Amino acid sequence: MSNSGRVEAFSDGVFAIAITLLILEIRVPEETGHKLTEALAHQWPSYLAYIVSFLVIGVMWVNHHALFGHLAKVDRTLVFLNLLLLMVVAALPWPTALLAEHLRNTDDARIAGVIYSGLMVVHALIYGGIWWYVTRRRQLLNPRVDVEAARATRIRFNLGVLVYPATVGLALVSPWAMLTVHGLLAVYYAFNHLAIPGSEQAKPEGAS
Amino acid sequence: MSNSGRVEAFSDGVFAIAITLLILEIRVPEETGHKLTEALAHQWPSYLAYIVSFLVIGVMWVNHHALFGHLAKVDRTLVFLNLLLLMVVAALPWPTALLAEHLRNTDDARIAGVIYSGLMVVHALIYGGIWWYVTRRRQLLNPRVDVEAARATRIRFNLGVLVYPATVGLALVSPWAMLTVHGLLAVYYAFNHLAIPGSEQAKPEGAS
Amino acid sequence: MSNSGRVEAFSDGVFAIAITLLILEIRVPEETGHKLTEALAHQWPSYLAYIVSFLVIGVMWVNHHALFGHLAKVDRTLVFLNLLLLMVVAALPWPTALLAEHLRNTDDARIAGVIYSGLMVVHALIYGGIWWYVTRRRQLLNPRVDVEAARATRIRFNLGVLVYPATVGLALVSPWAMLTVHGLLAVYYAFNHLAIPGSEQAKPEGAS
Amino acid sequence: MSNSGRVEAFSDGVFAIAITLLILEIRVPEETGHKLTEALAHQWPSYLAYIVSFLVIGVMWVNHHALFGHLAKVDRTLVFLNLLLLMVVAALPWPTALLAEHLRNTDDARIAGVIYSGLMVVHALIYGGIWWYVTRRRQLLNPRVDVEAARATRIRFNLGVLVYPATVGLALVSPWAMLTVHGLLAVYYAFNHLAIPGSEQAKPEGAS
Repeated sequence: MSNSGRVEAFSDGVFAIAITLLILEIRVPEETGHKLTEALAHQWPSYLAYIVSFLVIGVMWVNHHALFGHLAKVDRTLVFLNLLLLMVVAALPWPTALLAEHLRNTDDARIAGVIYSGLMVVHALIYGGIWWYVTRRRQLLNPRVDVEAARATRIRFNLGVLVYPATVGLALVSPWAMLTVHGLLAVYYAFNHLAIPGSEQAKPEGAS
Repeated sequence: MSNSGRVEAFSDGVFAIAITLLILEIRVPEETGHKLTEALAHQWPSYLAYIVSFLVIGVMWVNHHALFGHLAKVDRTLVFLNLLLLMVVAALPWPTALLAEHLRNTDDARIAGVIYSGLMVVHALIYGGIWWYVTRRRQLLNPRVDVEAARATRIRFNLGVLVYPATVGLALVSPWAMLTVHGLLAVYYAFNHLAIPGSEQAKPEGAS
Repeated sequence: MSNSGRVEAFSDGVFAIAITLLILEIRVPEETGHKLTEALAHQWPSYLAYIVSFLVIGVMWVNHHALFGHLAKVDRTLVFLNLLLLMVVAALPWPTALLAEHLRNTDDARIAGVIYSGLMVVHALIYGGIWWYVTRRRQLLNPRVDVEAARATRIRFNLGVLVYPATVGLALVSPWAMLTVHGLLAVYYAFNHLAIPGSEQAKPEGAS
Repeated sequence: MSNSGRVEAFSDGVFAIAITLLILEIRVPEETGHKLTEALAHQWPSYLAYIVSFLVIGVMWVNHHALFGHLAKVDRTLVFLNLLLLMVVAALPWPTALLAEHLRNTDDARIAGVIYSGLMVVHALIYGGIWWYVTRRRQLLNPRVDVEAARATRIRFNLGVLVYPATVGLALVSPWAMLTVHGLLAVYYAFNHLAIPGSEQAKPEGAS
């Protein structure tokens, strides 16, 4: 394993567990006199929240993978920043369940939506911070990576940091719309991520 | 790690977690005045559902492993399709618990059975879609794989896609029979999977 | 990764998850008028069951690791047998919680104890079956392993299969004693496992 | 994989799962007449406990990683000692939830705090024991490691073992202060860990 290998493996573990724990938040209606179909239909926000959060965490993993693919090694600061990132990722099943539980009540849904989008903002800030840090400490980067071009991408990252706060505002208007936007952003980022110059030439197939 | 290595490791993580979370759905009868043996006997559908779903997810993992064994690299589309596949795999503890909870009530068991089999259909469709995609994009395949022969297997895959919808119909007739059929299908697929030409010659022992 | 590598990695995942899920079965006493110390003291069987089951699963993992260390490759039958073994391993948090819940009530504790020891018997039988299978199919074994000597160990394995049923009987006499014996057996097996000839010479330090 | 590779992978799995299970202990307030903001504000100790325990387990993982980075191989005793260490790590979600549940009630918070800090003491003792053991059995260490210098670090380890018991005393005075100190200790250890001579020269970047 490379120097960054065990950090990646640990991160992969946290991503895989967080994404799989999402299902625990969907309730199994108990055997009662009520019709099962009604009970299942009633909890539709849980299914929607599951799908969106699964895509969101999945795409976070893809991008984490892409970022670490540009690194040659890790230092203590990066390990610590990565730990903060994982703290947010591992927390996501909670706002997902919160939103699913309260999506039918408009007032509470707004609060849950602000928390959900708020955690996305925190994630984006830490992710941006990690990228900023590794492009500053060039010895952490894979020698193949064009450092100047990589640094130039910082601005685009900062733009990304502006998009997420907008979803916090959207949550106040419509928690529904917010959840839909997060789902669409995940699909978008799944196919259009930040091409980091120097590595893409080496992997022309777009291999992740 | 190879290009596809980290996608495989992440997928393995999701499979391993989903299969191990199944046990959380079996209740531990509380310390009450009732006899423990009766309480344990009452929840027999949970044990049956655990065994069948464990085999089903286990065999899904074996086949996922076999499919990725034929790949040389992955691209963004494949990563996304694989994420959709994992979304279904990670969801399976839920229909398992749903079926276990309602298997004693015939009407509700039918609904739970349709959902259970329905997710298997979705899984089969995405799996078939991944196979179709990687045989179309031959640069993703391992050079050892005979592409024409691999493409010819698509029809057999489509036949598989026809078998699963039949279990949805079977769930309406008998949720029991449906669950038994899924268990038998898992054992069958464990020993008879799609031999993909070109690789088998290289691994004559049937090594997976 | 070697041919058996991904099976080992998947198995490791299931072992690690099952062992870590054990803690979820220990309740957190709620904030009530009662004294916390009393509530915590009342659930002492949970702590005992946690410790014993953690050691048991941990030592099962060590032995699984040792067995797969003697293999050069895996075939479909072995993958399927290993899946059955993992089905038992993944199930262990359930009898652990069952025993913890009912250890204070003698009658129910006997039933829970029989189930706990019964699963250990099933585990020993499948593990013995795997060893029997791989010593029969010598092409699966690492060429360094002395096949005749390895086959000779089968009898000792069968003796092991005799010890576990005795703990089922012990559970009927004293569920306590049974749990203690399982803990002691785990410590014993942690330090004294089956030396499989041919490999030990290659690893004189007793490296696992 | 190296001889110690599979032990590391298994340990990583347990660390990753334990750290990700922490979120399950934070409750999702149900849809009731009460205001959601109040219910969320009421459970602030859960958020604090989540953050501190996440950092604590994360830094335990970093140090575990550093320790195993100095090993060339593992023996049975080390595997067993490591299993005891993991038993404590995997248990941490429980005292975390216990502390979160009772932090608002001063008397119960003291008891929960003593248990929380007590497990940290046990962790430090086992970790120190492992370090003592591997520096005594020099054949387990990577040949690059300066054994005499490594042995000299034992005293510093023993000092660490003195710090943790102090937090048990602090829990009796103020469970709050104790939790804060554990958070600060985690941040401190994240950036200042025991440099083990011989390896650091080989990795001048402070790569972990």
